[in-house]
This record gives sequence, C-alpha cells and structure tokens, in this order.
Amino acid sequence: MKHFLNTQDWSRAELDTLLASAAEFKRQPVGAQLRGKSIALVFFNPSLRTRTSFELGAFQLGGHAVVLAPGKDAWPIEFAPGAVMDGEAEEHIAEVARVLARYVDLIAVRAFPRFRDWTEDREDTVLRAFARHSTVPVINLETITHPCQELAHALALQEHFGTTDLRGKKYVLTWTYHPRPLNTAVANSALTIATRLGMDVTLLCPTPEYILDERYLGWARDNVVESGGSFRVSHDIAEAYRGADVVYAKSWGAIPYFGRWEEEKPVRDAHRHFIVDEAKMALTNDAVFSHCLPLRRNVKATDAVMDSPRCIAIDEAENRLHVQKAVMAALVGQQA
Amino acid sequence: MKHFLNTQDWSRAELDTLLASAAEFKRQPVGAQLRGKSIALVFFNPSLRTRTSFELGAFQLGGHAVVLAPGKDAWPIEFAPGAVMDGEAEEHIAEVARVLARYVDLIAVRAFPRFRDWTEDREDTVLRAFARHSTVPVINLETITHPCQELAHALALQEHFGTTDLRGKKYVLTWTYHPRPLNTAVANSALTIATRLGMDVTLLCPTPEYILDERYLGWARDNVVESGGSFRVSHDIAEAYRGADVVYAKSWGAIPYFGRWEEEKPVRDAHRHFIVDEAKMALTNDAVFSHCLPLRRNVKATDAVMDSPRCIAIDEAENRLHVQKAVMAALVGQQA
Amino acid sequence: MKHFLNTQDWSRAELDTLLASAAEFKRQPVGAQLRGKSIALVFFNPSLRTRTSFELGAFQLGGHAVVLAPGKDAWPIEFAPGAVMDGEAEEHIAEVARVLARYVDLIAVRAFPRFRDWTEDREDTVLRAFARHSTVPVINLETITHPCQELAHALALQEHFGTTDLRGKKYVLTWTYHPRPLNTAVANSALTIATRLGMDVTLLCPTPEYILDERYLGWARDNVVESGGSFRVSHDIAEAYRGADVVYAKSWGAIPYFGRWEEEKPVRDAHRHFIVDEAKMALTNDAVFSHCLPLRRNVKATDAVMDSPRCIAIDEAENRLHVQKAVMAALVGQQA
Repeated sequence: MKHFLNTQDWSRAELDTLLASAAEFKRQPVGAQLRGKSIALVFFNPSLRTRTSFELGAFQLGGHAVVLAPGKDAWPIEFAPGAVMDGEAEEHIAEVARVLARYVDLIAVRAFPRFRDWTEDREDTVLRAFARHSTVPVINLETITHPCQELAHALALQEHFGTTDLRGKKYVLTWTYHPRPLNTAVANSALTIATRLGMDVTLLCPTPEYILDERYLGWARDNVVESGGSFRVSHDIAEAYRGADVVYAKSWGAIPYFGRWEEEKPVRDAHRHFIVDEAKMALTNDAVFSHCLPLRRNVKATDAVMDSPRCIAIDEAENRLHVQKAVMAALVGQQA
Repeated sequence: MKHFLNTQDWSRAELDTLLASAAEFKRQPVGAQLRGKSIALVFFNPSLRTRTSFELGAFQLGGHAVVLAPGKDAWPIEFAPGAVMDGEAEEHIAEVARVLARYVDLIAVRAFPRFRDWTEDREDTVLRAFARHSTVPVINLETITHPCQELAHALALQEHFGTTDLRGKKYVLTWTYHPRPLNTAVANSALTIATRLGMDVTLLCPTPEYILDERYLGWARDNVVESGGSFRVSHDIAEAYRGADVVYAKSWGAIPYFGRWEEEKPVRDAHRHFIVDEAKMALTNDAVFSHCLPLRRNVKATDAVMDSPRCIAIDEAENRLHVQKAVMAALVGQQA
Repeated sequence: MKHFLNTQDWSRAELDTLLASAAEFKRQPVGAQLRGKSIALVFFNPSLRTRTSFELGAFQLGGHAVVLAPGKDAWPIEFAPGAVMDGEAEEHIAEVARVLARYVDLIAVRAFPRFRDWTEDREDTVLRAFARHSTVPVINLETITHPCQELAHALALQEHFGTTDLRGKKYVLTWTYHPRPLNTAVANSALTIATRLGMDVTLLCPTPEYILDERYLGWARDNVVESGGSFRVSHDIAEAYRGADVVYAKSWGAIPYFGRWEEEKPVRDAHRHFIVDEAKMALTNDAVFSHCLPLRRNVKATDAVMDSPRCIAIDEAENRLHVQKAVMAALVGQQA
C-alpha cells in the first residue's frame, strides 16, 4: 500500500501520471472515482485552502471528507510508544489511526513542526505515526514538506510554459521576510520538485544559516543527477534573479535558531529587503512569479508583483484542488 | 453577474420570482439544481440557523457547502487595499476571494459590524470586498443587512395571510430590550422588505436615538413611493401597536452610541418595557408576531407571545432553508 | 414517534433487529436509506469517533449530517422553562429544537453531566428537553448513558463469540483508574446491555462509593429477571476476574463525590492497581477485552492487553458506524 508522504517516494513516471490526471480533472471536475468513499482530514494546524480543496475534491468525485482537529474538537493524542498516559493526551495514535482507518478510505494529516528543536521536528513524528498505524493510505497535508503544494506548483508551471517539460528553466527559490519564523516545508518541497523536474535551481537566502536541512539538499542533489538540472545556493539577490524564468518566494525560520527565536529575530529583521518587487523582477527573463499563499502583501511581495499578469499564485492555489483529486483517486484506485 | 447583497439591488419582479421559487422548494425539497456545485460559507461571526440551513439547502439540491471561519479555523484576513501586512492578518482579501472563487460556485459571507464606529461599519467593507474580488456570485449572510431573513420573513407573512399581496397590512417593527447592543441588520432589513411589499410600516423605538441609519430610511421612503405603502416613525407603544396586522420585534444598539456603549446602557435599560407581551398584542388587529431568532424569552417577548398560535417565528426560521435554496439556484442559474 | 434515548426504551426484539441490521450494513456499507435526509449532530462536548461515524454513516446512506457545537460555533442555549433570559443564553431549547426539527429528519445530542450535582445530572435535562420539543426523532450521543456504544459493544461480542446468543457468558465490568473523574454513562450502559443480553454480570469497583446510580442497578436487576442472566457487585479483583469470558473496562467518578472532586481524588488515586494487565487477564477464561475508547494506555490498560489479539476495542469502535446506520435507518423508516 502506497502513502503520499513525499513526492520523493514516488517515481518520476508516477508523478507525471498524477500531473496528467490533475490536468484532466481540471477539464472535467465532476466524477465518480470516490463514490461512497471517504477521507479524514486531520488538522493539528489550521487551514483555508487545504481543507476547502480536499473537501470539495472529495465531493466532486462522489466522496466525503470528515474534518478533525485533535485537541480542539477532538481529544489530544499521544504519539510516544509505551507512554504511561497520565498527562493531557486522552488517546494514543495506535487507537486513533486504527479506528479512523476502519471508518475512512484515506487519512490526510497536517502537523506543523513545534519549532522548539529541529532534530525532533525533522523526524516528522506525527505523520509517520499515522502512516505506521493506519491500514489505509495516508496523505501529507503539510508537515515538514508539502507534496500537494509541489504538484500544484508543478502543474501551474507546466500550464504557464505550455509544456510538461520544464528542463533548462532557471528557477529561483527566494527566502523572503515575514514577522514570524515560519515552517520550512514549502521551501523543502520547492527544492524537491524543481530539481525533480530538471530545472536549474538556485536557493537564494540571506545567510548560510537560512540554508535548508541537509536531507532536502541531498534530495535536490540526487534529483539533478537523475533529471539533468542543476542546484546551487546563493546569497546574492541580483545575481540569483538575473535571467530567472521562475521566481518562487517563501519565508522560513533559520534551522540553527529553532527554540531560540528571539536571537533569530534581528537577523531576520535585517533582511526585509528580500521582498519580491518590480526592481528585482526586472532582472529576470520576464519570469513568472508564484507563492504558496497565504502571502503578506508588501512584506513578502509588493502589490505590483502580486497584481501583475506574471503572478500565477492564484492558478497554483486552484491547482491544489485538481492535483489532490488525482492523488486521492490514485491512492483509492490502488486498493481496488 | 448578479450578487445577493441586498434585496434593494433586485427588482420587485425578481424578488417575487425568488419567493415563488422558495414556495416551490418548500413543497419539493430535493432537487438537482446545484448538482456538483459548491458554496463557501464564510463566517466571521457564529451562526446556528444560517449555517444549518445553507448547508442543508446545498445538500438537498445536490451541492456541497464548505464552512470557513477566518481567524478561528482559517487565517485572519486583511481588507485594506495597499496595506503593508506586518500585523496579524496573514492573507489579503484579494487572494482569499479570488482563490475561493476558483474552488466554489458561490461565496456567502457573514460579517457583523465591529460596533466601534458606525461610519466605518456602514461601509459594509468585508462583504463589499468579497463582492469586488470574487469572480462568482456573493451572498450576504448578515452584515449590516440580512436579505435572506427578509425573504424568509416575507414568505412566512404570505403563507400566514394566504396571499402574495401584502399591501395595506399595518406592519410594526418594534425595538425591544436586550442586555447587549445588537446589530441593526435585521431591523434595516425589516424596514426594507416591509416597505418593498407595500405595507403601512411603523418603526417603533424608544427615542430618536434608536432610529435607524438614513440609508435604510431612504430605502423605505423610496419603496413606499413605488409600492403604495407608507412609512413613519413612532415612540408611542400603544399608538403603534393599535390595529397592527404584523408585529416584528428586534433589539439593536443606538447608532449615535457606537463605541460608547457604556453611555447607551442606562438608556437601553430604561426601556425594558418594550418587551412584546399579551397586553400589547391585545391592542392589535389579532396581529401575527415574528422575530428572526435567536430570541431571549421573557426579555424580548414573553412565553405567552412565543407560545401563541399567532407566533410564526418558527415558520420564518424554517423558510430560511427554502428561500436560500431559491437564491442559490437563481445565482448559479444565471451562470449556466 | 420513537426516539433512541436508551436501549431500555426498546424491546429486546427491536434491539435484535437493530443488531441484525447493523451486521448487514457492515457487509454492505453503501445504501440509499437516508437519501435526501439529514441529521443534526449537536455536540455540547467534543467527540472524535461519534462525529466521524455519524457523519460517514449518514453519507454512506445518501444523507447529510450537520455538526453543531452550541456555545462554541452556535449560540449558548437556555433549558429552564419560564426563564427570564437575561444571562448568557441567547436562545431557548423550545426554539432551537423546533427550528432544527424543521430543517432535519433526525436530531442527535451529546451532553455530558456538569459534574457538580448528580441529582441534577441524573435528570438528563438537555437530552430530554430536545426530545420534548423536537418533532423529529432524537438520538442519544452520550449523556448519562451511551446507547450507541452499547449496540457497538454487543455487536462486537456477538462477532467475537460467533453467535447472537450471549447467555451464560461471564461478563465483568471493571472500574479503572483515570486522573480525572469521568462520566458514568458508558458504565451505566454496559450494565444495561450486558444484563439485557442475559449474561452473568459482575460490576467490579474499588469501594461501595463507586457503585452506579440506583436507576441503572434497577435496570440491571429487571433485565436479568427477564433475560435469565445474573447481576452482582464485587470489590475483589481476583474473584471478579476469575473465569470471566468478557472484561469491559471504564473509569468513572464516584457519585457521592459529585461537586467535591478534590475529596474523591485520594480515594481514586489509591486504586491505580485496577489497571487491566496481563496478570489479571490470566485469571480469566481467556476473556475478550474491550473498552469504549478513548483509552489512556498504561493507565487504564497496559500495552500488552491493548495489543493482544483478545482486545476487540477497535472492532467495537468500528461497529459504531454500523449500529448507528441501523438506528438512523430505523428511526427515519418509522416516519415513512
């Protein structure tokens, strides 16, 4: 049984099939692929787009999504094996996942890092515990990666460039300022999918402290060996933007500062000029701009960039619906 | 593309068609008018009847409603154009509305006033921002007016009197006491629809300070010119109730006191006797009584009034389901 | 019109029919018994399994469940007849129940005790008020009893023993430790259904203070007269477990201490050894173990017990889905 935890677990041919299926769902949104089937959406963190798009995707294919928020409208959950549960948690993941798997055909989980200790967060404990105990496929709704966003992003780029072959495109993933230290998930995912698709990828960030976790750098290096693209890191804004075909923006907290965010704050505050603006975009090869949303206007990108016809963030957001239908249909189909 | 922001934007013929369609949905609740379609219900304020009736209405017509509560289970939203978003809001309405409009076929919004400054609240900023940015029709779920309630109220009166022609009925909208200063929306809406239907309308309130906003008084005056009814204000309980065919009750905060509610409190507290009771109802022409609900029993109206066969508040509440199906079907139909 | 408030209100033949129908739904999960129908799930307390299983059960039979949480995403509600509603509650149950009953075909209610005064809690005020005012059938989602859990438990035992005839089985309901004083509902229900099915039932609890309310002891005694089983109370762990065919565990707060929980705490804390472990299970006749979930591992039962093939708690949880579909179909069917 295959889960959808990371695109890296799926072959390139499988990903291409998902993207083609998503494009087909975009042309023909209503179907019966999930007729009588159901998915549990387990949200340890809030969501607008993810919940809406999964809930509607299930509905449009004849299925039903149940939304659960543990610790809010359900019991808090214990994840440690062997725990003596005399604290806050009323239930162990062993029971939660096994019971849910009796009710539904798919389990999807959003669980952000706790931002106190990256060596702990990088274990992706919650998602992996669901995958271990569930007897039905598990989907990652954003934990320390965001593979659904990857597919939506890839589809939007394929649509924009009018081809499924993105090899040779110059792709810049730029860190941007945000008042709070955010999850690295979308950044990790952008590196993963951009290198997987054979683009020439630059990770632009303020200082070496903002470089992403070695696991994802490793995936990027492996991917370009297989796909024929390239991958490098830059701290020079002008050099990175110059000639770019794609600018993808995201803010994230620096990994060495996990748990010491007050020390990171002045470093982050010193790099507000990483905002995506018209001056930077003018250096590019008329690049397309995108972002996973939500985006703070005039902090991460200016109104001019967001309102430009080169901004495809809304298309990318729409594509969440289509790619997730493809993922759900594929995962349910494997059991048929 | 037509929105449903206020009944005043719709012609009398269009409203009559909606009411006739609602009556038909009451006879035949299950249909396929929204087959495969969806509606986002965006609640900035909580709801029992509105959510339930929209969710079920969509279901009964083959569609699906997604419920979103920004700032609670979704991101807080920025509405000001050009804002530098370094505060609480994680996303701008420009993105929220455009993305939602890619997912769903209708967007419905509940956004109460902030009760600090009426000159600000009367701009209906949230609803109008959704309508401006959305590429699909927007429905008002109660902001500073409540047009869905208007239609449910009108249908209940038509049912009670056994005719769609309500001209000549004596209609009293009475302010009632409530321990907190409430929204004027339903009061504004009651004036609007009662005058639109050509009734002889009296707005009964304790003092001139409780008279509603000039915009809605203007609509009322315009409507009676067109429809042949009449409109006046009274502060005399006995005189207002005498001979009434319809008593509609609502509490609201006085507009001049917005943001200074501690000063309004003694004024409000001095008018607890505006409660709808049997003595007042005895002055009427065996009037029907209604209220939009929720209603505090024995504060706004007595048990005797609420439990009387002349009370049609439950019918009006039920009609929310039927009229909203008519509105959704009409708005989706215009795009077909 | 029949409600589903307690199994004790239903004849043994009716319960047998519900269990047979549930077994059939387990074999054939998708149907049209609730086509176009709806159920309101009113949660005054949170839930994982109950909400998920009802929501999916309604979906799988062509219906729709609306989830409402009064006081959280809906108005707080008044239950006292004749109340002058100038406090927190915005709406009276008389309106809430009557309006909901106009919208939906079934109303289901979860309302736990308030744990301050058992003489008050044992009146089951919230559930009974819904049943009194509703014009559609009302289902108990756990108040001071939990009849849906009873049916799920009974079905799991029938499956395990391979027969619908459970007479003569030795059944132990054991109190277990939990850091907080919990609801007696599942314990009351376990006694009720186990005696109804003619088993030889032992209620094992630390001290006489933990014996359940006289109403449920009375039901148990009445049931064994009718069904041929037996019922007794024990405070001796080894004696109670010896030769048992079924061990069912639950923690609850002692009734004499309602409202004085700080006084009960040392009594409860002194009985942590009531945990279900392998040593105790070794005394049984290779007994099956179950629990209603959520369960705190290594507090109420050890990992070894929970992970043993003799543990049928996951089956029981799954059966919630099936038995509730049987209940919904039966209640809607009586109106057809």
